[in-house]
Amino acid sequence: MSLLDRELREQPEAVQRLLDATDVDGLADALHREDLRYVLIAARGSSDNAARYAQYLFGVHHGLPVALATPSLISLYERAPRLDGALVLGVSQSGQSPDVVSVLQAAADQGRPVVAVTNDEASPLAQAATAVLPLHAGAERSVAATKTYTNSLAALALLSAALEEGTTRQERVAALAAVPAAMAATIDAAVEAGKAVTRYRYMQHCVVVGRGLNYSTAYEIALKLKELTGVIAEPYSPPDLLHGPIAAVDEGFPVVLVAPEEPSLASIRDLLEPLRERRAELIAISAAPELVEAAHTTFPLPEQPAGWLTPLVAVIPGQVMAARLAVERGADLDQPAGLTKVTETY
Amino acid sequence: MSLLDRELREQPEAVQRLLDATDVDGLADALHREDLRYVLIAARGSSDNAARYAQYLFGVHHGLPVALATPSLISLYERAPRLDGALVLGVSQSGQSPDVVSVLQAAADQGRPVVAVTNDEASPLAQAATAVLPLHAGAERSVAATKTYTNSLAALALLSAALEEGTTRQERVAALAAVPAAMAATIDAAVEAGKAVTRYRYMQHCVVVGRGLNYSTAYEIALKLKELTGVIAEPYSPPDLLHGPIAAVDEGFPVVLVAPEEPSLASIRDLLEPLRERRAELIAISAAPELVEAAHTTFPLPEQPAGWLTPLVAVIPGQVMAARLAVERGADLDQPAGLTKVTETY
Repeated sequence: MSLLDRELREQPEAVQRLLDATDVDGLADALHREDLRYVLIAARGSSDNAARYAQYLFGVHHGLPVALATPSLISLYERAPRLDGALVLGVSQSGQSPDVVSVLQAAADQGRPVVAVTNDEASPLAQAATAVLPLHAGAERSVAATKTYTNSLAALALLSAALEEGTTRQERVAALAAVPAAMAATIDAAVEAGKAVTRYRYMQHCVVVGRGLNYSTAYEIALKLKELTGVIAEPYSPPDLLHGPIAAVDEGFPVVLVAPEEPSLASIRDLLEPLRERRAELIAISAAPELVEAAHTTFPLPEQPAGWLTPLVAVIPGQVMAARLAVERGADLDQPAGLTKVTETY
Repeated sequence: MSLLDRELREQPEAVQRLLDATDVDGLADALHREDLRYVLIAARGSSDNAARYAQYLFGVHHGLPVALATPSLISLYERAPRLDGALVLGVSQSGQSPDVVSVLQAAADQGRPVVAVTNDEASPLAQAATAVLPLHAGAERSVAATKTYTNSLAALALLSAALEEGTTRQERVAALAAVPAAMAATIDAAVEAGKAVTRYRYMQHCVVVGRGLNYSTAYEIALKLKELTGVIAEPYSPPDLLHGPIAAVDEGFPVVLVAPEEPSLASIRDLLEPLRERRAELIAISAAPELVEAAHTTFPLPEQPAGWLTPLVAVIPGQVMAARLAVERGADLDQPAGLTKVTETY
């Protein structure tokens, strides 16, 4: 079994490890400041997709606007942002990306609360921060991220719980406890459904559609498909797809629909009619009957956590699809062509 | 001549109109608040790419973090963000997008300064704002945006000037005055260089690379190529391209390099070696000798404004390239398949 397959299957226990190891009340002490007005997140690659999840999660739960940092402001233009009012998060499994570290350093210099979400507690990212939330994912040896991605989502969900107080915090932590079992059931179902992926052996491009909390899922699935298979996969929200790129969707064009049970599901469902009119090839990640019925290939979601936690399960079928398709095409899962594990910015 | 060609060529005079009509000192009065900590921008489509420009511009000039709004927080999750500390901008040529309007309404309800950047002073967007910065682009009849995009960039540059005081403000306004002539020279050069586009008649996909202030330019050129020609065009920053998608770049794969004279140029130049190793087809938008020498096709930039204003000229060759390529492929420039002018979010 490839490293990637092993790490992919290890995701439920990796999340369980993180949940067991994290002291949410202690985390809360590092976050609670009177003057928090918004959140700034610095990240790259898969971690940037985890940041997209936080963008919606912190908005839905706390009404907190989230800015995604533009690290090249520091590296190219030598201008650090003024960060009064900000809670600053850096997300990086390796904790090595120099430009992500530079944002956290600037924030710490300004006396802001800075949390490093990383798999390496001794990394430069962890050293630059005022608090560290270790991912506890265990070593990730495959070049393509799987368990560090889902553990980053879970870590951001724990941060969100820590931003609440009292019973709300307890309810959120309790909802998280249901995630590992739901992930395990999803992996089993996806491995079974993944046999159908042979149908996409000669697919050259596709789009992946998700919205709201699962906009992040669409981005991460598209990234996995690109990294592992070389397929040109583009992530879209439904309005952005309808605004123009739907013109490229004709008979047989593969469209992956990310549609777990949360408010964005209705928006994905509304795409079914225009997509069927164009005779698109539909690949559904969903348990919703209309989607299952309309799809040519379904990755079922047999067990789903609370809506705000669905990105932790909905990404799994995309990981499995990308991995199986890469194998169908004869690629080396653990050494995808041209991919490097750490983004070094010159 | 198509509407699109006409509007594309009208860009210098449209920017001139905006510069002549805008009272920067008056705009400054609407913006100057003691409690501004960050900027939130709501936009979709081409306007979202203009927002990407502001993300770097406000960072480089003012150290202000910029968050791009996620309007579906309101439409799907019925949760408006808490906006204390925010200057809120809505960018929409039509001023009609309901979800963009909803963000501005929420901000105005909270007593925040809210500026509508729009081509329609009577639009719902303008009505929701506390101040309006009219684009003065004149009616845009082509479905694909050209002059409203560059006027949105110029409007955001004027807002940036208004955030300064005294001589700095005057210097910024003076730098803007040089833009229309530089745009006119760029259009002439691009129309001439555009004859070479016949070479890309059968191109199926490409990547467009830009960074920093011109990351926005890469996004907008990719959008124009997708909208007008159906080519699958993906925008990347150099680090994100190198992190993985470069695996898909092999012999003859077309790569558009956006490289005007500003600090991001060095970062694009560093891509030349890995791209030449892979024998990629290089299309340069640049006046830099190494890029011109390495490129198979060059769109020259005969006259460039100050670095922070280069996105106003660097996008033009991409607009021309997309329009000429669409004609080569027999598309109707004014009625691209499947494209709608206003994004209505259900």
